[in-house]
Amino acid sequence: MEKPYVAGIDIGGQTTKMGIVDARGTVLTQTTIRTDTHSNVNDYITDLCDALTRMALEVGGIEKIRGIGVGAPNGNYYTGSIEMAVNLVWSGNHTIPFAKLMFEKIGIPVALTNDANAAAVGEMTYGAARGMKNFIMITLGTGVGSGIVINGEVVYGHDGFAGELGHTTSVRNNGRQCNCGRTGCLETYTSAIGVGRTAREWLEFSCDKSLLRDLKETITSRDVYEAAVQGDELAKKIFEFTGKKLGESFADFVAFSAPEAIVLFGGLAKAGDLILKPIEESMNANLLNMWKNKIKLVFSQLKESDAAILGASALAWELK
Amino acid sequence: MEKPYVAGIDIGGQTTKMGIVDARGTVLTQTTIRTDTHSNVNDYITDLCDALTRMALEVGGIEKIRGIGVGAPNGNYYTGSIEMAVNLVWSGNHTIPFAKLMFEKIGIPVALTNDANAAAVGEMTYGAARGMKNFIMITLGTGVGSGIVINGEVVYGHDGFAGELGHTTSVRNNGRQCNCGRTGCLETYTSAIGVGRTAREWLEFSCDKSLLRDLKETITSRDVYEAAVQGDELAKKIFEFTGKKLGESFADFVAFSAPEAIVLFGGLAKAGDLILKPIEESMNANLLNMWKNKIKLVFSQLKESDAAILGASALAWELK
Repeated sequence: MEKPYVAGIDIGGQTTKMGIVDARGTVLTQTTIRTDTHSNVNDYITDLCDALTRMALEVGGIEKIRGIGVGAPNGNYYTGSIEMAVNLVWSGNHTIPFAKLMFEKIGIPVALTNDANAAAVGEMTYGAARGMKNFIMITLGTGVGSGIVINGEVVYGHDGFAGELGHTTSVRNNGRQCNCGRTGCLETYTSAIGVGRTAREWLEFSCDKSLLRDLKETITSRDVYEAAVQGDELAKKIFEFTGKKLGESFADFVAFSAPEAIVLFGGLAKAGDLILKPIEESMNANLLNMWKNKIKLVFSQLKESDAAILGASALAWELK
Repeated sequence: MEKPYVAGIDIGGQTTKMGIVDARGTVLTQTTIRTDTHSNVNDYITDLCDALTRMALEVGGIEKIRGIGVGAPNGNYYTGSIEMAVNLVWSGNHTIPFAKLMFEKIGIPVALTNDANAAAVGEMTYGAARGMKNFIMITLGTGVGSGIVINGEVVYGHDGFAGELGHTTSVRNNGRQCNCGRTGCLETYTSAIGVGRTAREWLEFSCDKSLLRDLKETITSRDVYEAAVQGDELAKKIFEFTGKKLGESFADFVAFSAPEAIVLFGGLAKAGDLILKPIEESMNANLLNMWKNKIKLVFSQLKESDAAILGASALAWELK
């Protein structure tokens, strides 16, 4: 094969990760650049293409790269644009025709979507969803993202922004305030930040002894995990509550697209059975009878350090 | 064209409607048979094929029919089976390989799905969703059904049963008991029966004067509509409540598939602005900012008496 590799680029607010990947999903080489040191997108893209070209020398040069996949906040697959991504200094309130700018600079086809959709394609190409045509990817990180695959294709919707399941409603009345301006979003309960909020709320309103009590102000989902592993009852209850919320929402997602599986990725997914068991129980309790105990619930099979690059790179294999 | 027509068959618990349709969506001829007079499915299919063959004589004979589309409760598009449809006497707890049985009898290809999915295909082929690739059909009848179209194709999911949006959760805690065994399903609030339940509940717990008060035991959504048209305040509030519930759920559906439009069909949709305005307000209040005032909310454009036949018939054009 003349062009045996693809490149994957994952754009975060501070750091951009990139790597070169072969058809088996091996990350052959990877590097990072800063995202936030350029206020002008053209300067950023120059930096990005320079770094990519340098990195490509390790695998025989940039001409070995068949395509580039980019995962970016507010990435629109249809237009190849990054639309008003407030966390990216060079986007802000603007729409950046990112794929076009990058293609003009480097001469290799570029596909772009948001990070959760990229994760779904990565899982389908190299990970836990290989061979699956219908599944839902849920990324449990700072926020809750999702990538929905139906008939083997990511659902982008009419405008390119489908799959915002973190902003479906978990609590209808008096729900927690969300950054998006709404209240009660699933994300406010089940993201890493949501789990921290639960912990602080519960510590305030209960007197139970807990390892978490000393950490009160700075508590993170990792602290809750570590306490739970040590047998802390409050921490275990926080996972049960978080899993219950996820399971309730998952049951509604299943009613929508009847997936074969729901694939979990991200920090919270590392809690293993502590989070999986309560999700499973709650999901099955809330599913219609025909789906009870039939929907697989699995963790991502991609190594965390490679997952963002793999996900983005997988998009590039689909470029025509 | 040698075979210029398709047949559409809509199987209900008591009555089966069928008709022959041309490519413009004109129902050239139609008839009905009883569904519930045969306990054996083979007898029913014999009756059905006889009626269809007789009817076809009016358009030049059965050889003018290119394909047959069937809308049936629990119809599985992938397998062509009707699976445990308790409302059909000849199905009950059994799985009936309906498309296969009918094809063996009549020699014309048969496609089968449930009635809400058929309605979605009908709307896409002949109605309000012509030209749309991404929309959600909501049927507001005795129950609440849905057909989801993504990239121009109905979503059937992994098992053939995707699109049960009437059984997503509208009220998470202390919700109304649903026939499906769960509580709080959207259907329990917004189906014709749900609207009747709301009316009876509200009449019981309020002393407000209302035209509905005399009808208390037998009240239907049609009664609520007629009272609302006459200016009855309670009846108008019932529509506002029903619309609010639908709008809240629609906002979550949009977060899933980012459709261009939501298309409403069924008895309740006839209430026009009485139901449309509160749905619109509630949906926009609950949508993420990027979707506010951008999702079309439209009524079916198919004549009610023809809609079920048209929907089923539209499936047949897609037969390979």
